[in-house]
Amino acid sequence: MTVRTTPIPLEDIESLAVGAWILGTGGGGSPYLGLLNMRQLYAEGRQVSLMDPFDLADDDDVAVVSNMGAPLVGQERLTDSRTVARAVEIMERYQGRKFRAVMSLEIGGGNAIQPLMAAAHLGIPVVDADCMGRAFPEAQMTSFAIGDLQPWPLSMADCRGQEVIVARVTTWKWMERVSRKACVELGSVASTCKAPRTGREVKDWAIHHTTTKAIGLGRAVRAAQRRHSDPIAAILEAEGGLRLFAGKVSDIARRTTEGFLRGTATIEGLDGDRGARMEIAFQNEWAVAWRDGVPVATVPDLICVLDAVTGEAIGTETLRYGQRVAVVALPAPPILMTPKGLEHVGPRAFGYDIEFRSVFAPTAAE
Amino acid sequence: MTVRTTPIPLEDIESLAVGAWILGTGGGGSPYLGLLNMRQLYAEGRQVSLMDPFDLADDDDVAVVSNMGAPLVGQERLTDSRTVARAVEIMERYQGRKFRAVMSLEIGGGNAIQPLMAAAHLGIPVVDADCMGRAFPEAQMTSFAIGDLQPWPLSMADCRGQEVIVARVTTWKWMERVSRKACVELGSVASTCKAPRTGREVKDWAIHHTTTKAIGLGRAVRAAQRRHSDPIAAILEAEGGLRLFAGKVSDIARRTTEGFLRGTATIEGLDGDRGARMEIAFQNEWAVAWRDGVPVATVPDLICVLDAVTGEAIGTETLRYGQRVAVVALPAPPILMTPKGLEHVGPRAFGYDIEFRSVFAPTAAE
Repeated sequence: MTVRTTPIPLEDIESLAVGAWILGTGGGGSPYLGLLNMRQLYAEGRQVSLMDPFDLADDDDVAVVSNMGAPLVGQERLTDSRTVARAVEIMERYQGRKFRAVMSLEIGGGNAIQPLMAAAHLGIPVVDADCMGRAFPEAQMTSFAIGDLQPWPLSMADCRGQEVIVARVTTWKWMERVSRKACVELGSVASTCKAPRTGREVKDWAIHHTTTKAIGLGRAVRAAQRRHSDPIAAILEAEGGLRLFAGKVSDIARRTTEGFLRGTATIEGLDGDRGARMEIAFQNEWAVAWRDGVPVATVPDLICVLDAVTGEAIGTETLRYGQRVAVVALPAPPILMTPKGLEHVGPRAFGYDIEFRSVFAPTAAE
Repeated sequence: MTVRTTPIPLEDIESLAVGAWILGTGGGGSPYLGLLNMRQLYAEGRQVSLMDPFDLADDDDVAVVSNMGAPLVGQERLTDSRTVARAVEIMERYQGRKFRAVMSLEIGGGNAIQPLMAAAHLGIPVVDADCMGRAFPEAQMTSFAIGDLQPWPLSMADCRGQEVIVARVTTWKWMERVSRKACVELGSVASTCKAPRTGREVKDWAIHHTTTKAIGLGRAVRAAQRRHSDPIAAILEAEGGLRLFAGKVSDIARRTTEGFLRGTATIEGLDGDRGARMEIAFQNEWAVAWRDGVPVATVPDLICVLDAVTGEAIGTETLRYGQRVAVVALPAPPILMTPKGLEHVGPRAFGYDIEFRSVFAPTAAE
């Protein structure tokens, strides 16, 4: 079998940073620092290639990486490409074999760029896929967990030189519990290599071609910016999204707790939404949006808070008073909306006693 | 070289349980459940042998085991000999080689029996040594840490099937921090296999023949009990100890926090100490004793609270209102009282701004 790997031009990584930040629905960490790492690595002559997931052999080993922790902390402890590469190397040492390729845990935010940073150091390609199709805060919120694949082992590295391996757990929630506590102790941010996946598992259970999708989305936004046309409209068109709200941020309550960034943002309506108010609760990512007290969008639908002028995403850690924003919803990958998927990522999985109803679902009245 | 390993009769394990509970200075966990495990294992036909540390080859690998966590939790989640054996097996798998023998992290309390439980399953001898000569609450409070030996790796297993490896840390305190948080998440008690030691390291840095010492101490107490002579006097004679106080427990404040059992016990004087009051602060183990507000004994001297009649130790988790007790001090291993030793285990290492002065040191007036 001929394996096609396509070099990723730096220009596409610039677009990836924009697109992934939108798909991050407020989380996944700002991609800006990852982008700076990639510019530097490319300037040093390194280049990263993209690999189609269906070109993986069934028994290939794939590393699944992410920067774990609370996004706000990532604004202070800066991303370094070598740390995520080290997390992968710890796993290679632990497993006693090399990875064929590396992929994103989540295509949202900086975590879309983490596998590129690892790949640049390790000289292996990046698989064009992730296992969320967005960003989510917890370990059991992946398509691999929904597929009941093996949750262990996980390797974790921090910038100082601490290394932890969660060697075995009985459930995905135990992986979340144990790895989260270790991450918090390392300073609420750590590079992780999640349970390795076979090529077969990636083909069967990953969410495919999301790197390409994020690059395309970023490209559409940047083109609209250059043309001075409406980038929000470009996003909605590219992704089949819906406008939920337009307004000005009037309050943001934020706390870094238990390894997450949690809180609520309040947005006062402008234009067609004048007089209305939207509140959006978050746990790293935007989770539930209420309009005048009525829930109008929930996980796993992607709730995205965008700069009203540039169309660029605003993260839960960077949202601030006075910003003019557009809140939009983008459709989630179908697997997240199955009954098993909703057990893992529906509103109740986040502690909200709300029935999931996609904003994209036809209503009874229609 | 002929290696002498001596079978340990069950009778000696009964004595070990009594002696180690005294050397535990309130901590290390009650040895009773470990003893029950050993009775069962011996009833099944298993037997454990003791090995002199100086019979180890320089390149032998030695497993250092302990049950980690808050002693009070160990009263509810009962010790199972298979869990500590599993911690050792995880380390063998991780290191890719078998251990020659197993030894105690601390000769105090139930942790004196943990290596016997592991050895019974693994079919290897127990080294007659530990690395505290007593019990202490934290990972950096060992002779191996005082000797600046490598602090990593550590393996951890719980009764449910979770397994964690702390693969690398930059300091012993980081080992304590990371492993403690993992232990707390597993329920504040877990079986651990600490950083493996070579035979050379055990010969150079362990505290030697402490298993034999604990057995001898327990034997002396049990003999005194049988003779109806004073077991406290037997302890003081066996160990060269000093009586500090006699009284009745009038208060005990106890909280399980951050993976430790912390608090203060108050004892009202009786007999020659009538009218006086002793307070003893603890973090798993008794740490500092004040008589009428004046510190009279501190770590690393062994502060032991004993049942006034039987001479048996009372743990920080089992002390209760109304008990008649004798408080005695026993001498600590010399390495703990060196300047480097006191950095690790002196009163300041426990947060008390008190200069260490052994109750066994000659005073200026003498």
